[in-house]
Amino acid sequence: MVSMLKVDLSNVWGDLSLPDLLATEQEVFAAHKTLAEGRGPGNDFLGWLELPTFEETEELQRIRRAAERIRADSDVFVVVGIGGSYLGPRAAIELVKGQNHNLKDSDPQVFFAGNNLSTRAWQELCELLEGKDFSINIISKSGTTTEPAIATRALRWMLERKYGAEKAKKRIYVTTDPKHGALRQMATEEGYESFIIPPNVGGRYSVLTAVGLLPMAVAGIAPMDVMLGAARARKELDIRSFENPAWQYAAIRNLLYRRGKAIELLGCYEPSFRYFAGWWQQLFGESEGKDGKGLFPATVEFTADLHSLGQMIQQGQRNLFETIVRFAPPRKRTTIEVDWKNLDGLNYLEGKTLDFVEEQAFQGTLSAHVDGGVPNIVLQTDEVDADTLGELFYFFELSCGISAYMLGVNPFNQPGVEFYKKNMFHLLGKPGY
Amino acid sequence: MVSMLKVDLSNVWGDLSLPDLLATEQEVFAAHKTLAEGRGPGNDFLGWLELPTFEETEELQRIRRAAERIRADSDVFVVVGIGGSYLGPRAAIELVKGQNHNLKDSDPQVFFAGNNLSTRAWQELCELLEGKDFSINIISKSGTTTEPAIATRALRWMLERKYGAEKAKKRIYVTTDPKHGALRQMATEEGYESFIIPPNVGGRYSVLTAVGLLPMAVAGIAPMDVMLGAARARKELDIRSFENPAWQYAAIRNLLYRRGKAIELLGCYEPSFRYFAGWWQQLFGESEGKDGKGLFPATVEFTADLHSLGQMIQQGQRNLFETIVRFAPPRKRTTIEVDWKNLDGLNYLEGKTLDFVEEQAFQGTLSAHVDGGVPNIVLQTDEVDADTLGELFYFFELSCGISAYMLGVNPFNQPGVEFYKKNMFHLLGKPGY
Repeated sequence: MVSMLKVDLSNVWGDLSLPDLLATEQEVFAAHKTLAEGRGPGNDFLGWLELPTFEETEELQRIRRAAERIRADSDVFVVVGIGGSYLGPRAAIELVKGQNHNLKDSDPQVFFAGNNLSTRAWQELCELLEGKDFSINIISKSGTTTEPAIATRALRWMLERKYGAEKAKKRIYVTTDPKHGALRQMATEEGYESFIIPPNVGGRYSVLTAVGLLPMAVAGIAPMDVMLGAARARKELDIRSFENPAWQYAAIRNLLYRRGKAIELLGCYEPSFRYFAGWWQQLFGESEGKDGKGLFPATVEFTADLHSLGQMIQQGQRNLFETIVRFAPPRKRTTIEVDWKNLDGLNYLEGKTLDFVEEQAFQGTLSAHVDGGVPNIVLQTDEVDADTLGELFYFFELSCGISAYMLGVNPFNQPGVEFYKKNMFHLLGKPGY
Repeated sequence: MVSMLKVDLSNVWGDLSLPDLLATEQEVFAAHKTLAEGRGPGNDFLGWLELPTFEETEELQRIRRAAERIRADSDVFVVVGIGGSYLGPRAAIELVKGQNHNLKDSDPQVFFAGNNLSTRAWQELCELLEGKDFSINIISKSGTTTEPAIATRALRWMLERKYGAEKAKKRIYVTTDPKHGALRQMATEEGYESFIIPPNVGGRYSVLTAVGLLPMAVAGIAPMDVMLGAARARKELDIRSFENPAWQYAAIRNLLYRRGKAIELLGCYEPSFRYFAGWWQQLFGESEGKDGKGLFPATVEFTADLHSLGQMIQQGQRNLFETIVRFAPPRKRTTIEVDWKNLDGLNYLEGKTLDFVEEQAFQGTLSAHVDGGVPNIVLQTDEVDADTLGELFYFFELSCGISAYMLGVNPFNQPGVEFYKKNMFHLLGKPGY
């Protein structure tokens, strides 16, 4: 029996009170309704609401089979994409398979390319590919975004030189629009196996399509396990009351914003959560950061950052609050051993498990930060696994949609991203700029 | 001929003017003087000012020789530490040797432990150590900080089981206080080779001691190369006028703070800069985040985050500014090739180098963000190498000392860090709490 994610709001009260929260009920109800009925701004990008499924669709079967083939014929899988096409799959693989997944022999290595313009990073990737059998996954709606397009061109050449034109084609997997765009055309003309990004799903909401699921599957995370967690969340988060964890999270962060908080810090006690936090940062930052509005989404990794940003959280400007993601304890525990000399003074912990110490660090930090004037939202979920991952993805996506509508912005556009591109194209001498 | 770091302030003007900057001259002068003469709060922690040296000291020789021994007898080097004892060495190794340094055969793998309480991270490390010859470096002033002490205890047991008690001792390297504390006592009693953290150097200012230099040396970064860069910076940054880049940086960030900016975003176009940004975040956050004051130090990785936080930077709340670190172009360039089909529309870049495209992305982003109301400070430095690393460390440390004195806080204490510890010790049942 898997338990549903819970939002614990008992550490947010101070300036805020429960009646303040309850007073937003009509507003949250309206935001959820607008989202669910597709009547708000950006309503042509609501496909993500209905992605989670309890059945293995034909697309999911093809993803599974492609992943099996790649796992059999490739030492390395290079995922080419930027934005959601990068952060989604990376978040999933690092959280579930660990930060050092590429050092383990059990699964193919997965590298990410096309998310930067660094010559050094590119040359490092080329070195890492030397002597290895590899396949690539090009993820892009258009196929013309500069960073992934440059990486794609170079990687295609590398594959053709290594395997010859025909065999190279069998090592190129494309995830793109079903009909339109340069990448779709390329896939059709060259005969690459291809997967779909539905036109009504935006980049930062795309992790539960082939965008996230094919790289996960190659890394050894079963797509259906992720989907089942997401499908369960989809069902349970449809409730229209404050029993809905997404309502609680969306409402409270808007209230804290209205009371003057400028920064939301997403924190976790698992180092492997780092890129998930990066995915969350894009989701909320890009959905809400517009029209001069929005909480700045920052991230912390505990306990490491208690010895870094911890000082500022405790005693700096009181313009921030924390959202802490808590996973259930690990099944396999580690016990602290005795040392007869006890120079480190740790013998009082003898026989205790590491996760017990971690839980006390969490509780101690929670009360210290709350006492210091930093409201804390706690999201309690299950073990770190594919099912929980699916649940977290859907929970944050739904919360973000509701939250952004409460904020009064379109959660599904990103007009500001074009500005640097236009300047860059002009400087690069791109035809038409 | 190595060129000195330059601060470009031409993109910060708007609300601010050059006369505003010049009006702070007496204040910056006083802050620098207070720091250099050791007459401000925290003046018992100024040892870092004088660490950079043009000569190889005896300590540096011992570091070099220990590193040679470790490189010869170990596949893996585990660095145990938290805060500055973690972020400093990790920042250095990832920036210079790349994010994937542990996947290359040329140098020993370096893993970091004792910076979290995650059972999963610990068990992953144990798996990675299986069948490998390894040595450990315990970095702690006291030897009793919970996270590193737990990791140390477990790693010592692992070494003793693997090699026997006597041989294990030769694989344990200690970096700690010269006289006091549990770790010093342990090193003396057990006969571990040990290095010094001077008592007048705090954690976040310790990277140019053995704290940073031994792990760097094991990873293949010559300590004297780092020191020479730092020593050059020490000399050149002693100038007492606005020609001093540290003056410019310290003054302008204080002015922006006084005009209401809440967040400083440190950004770079090199993915390998990620942990250097983490080191910077600790340096400034822990030095300035107190007494209800301080800019929140956040980090961005471009161009990836242009497709994430970029939207918010362009059009969100106008409460932030950016500081962008620019490295010189790489010596070895990569050229974009032609593709006769040109489906991606990239042929206009044929024959251009990747770093040329990157430079235009930087310029285009800079003007887009400035036009959007986000002041940009640009720090232009040399190539990514050990010398530049040393320069950057010293530049930021000195700037931070000056900046914090301008802010009116003690840059060298961290009283807020104790709060969570006290709560945690109480919950853990530690004697005396």
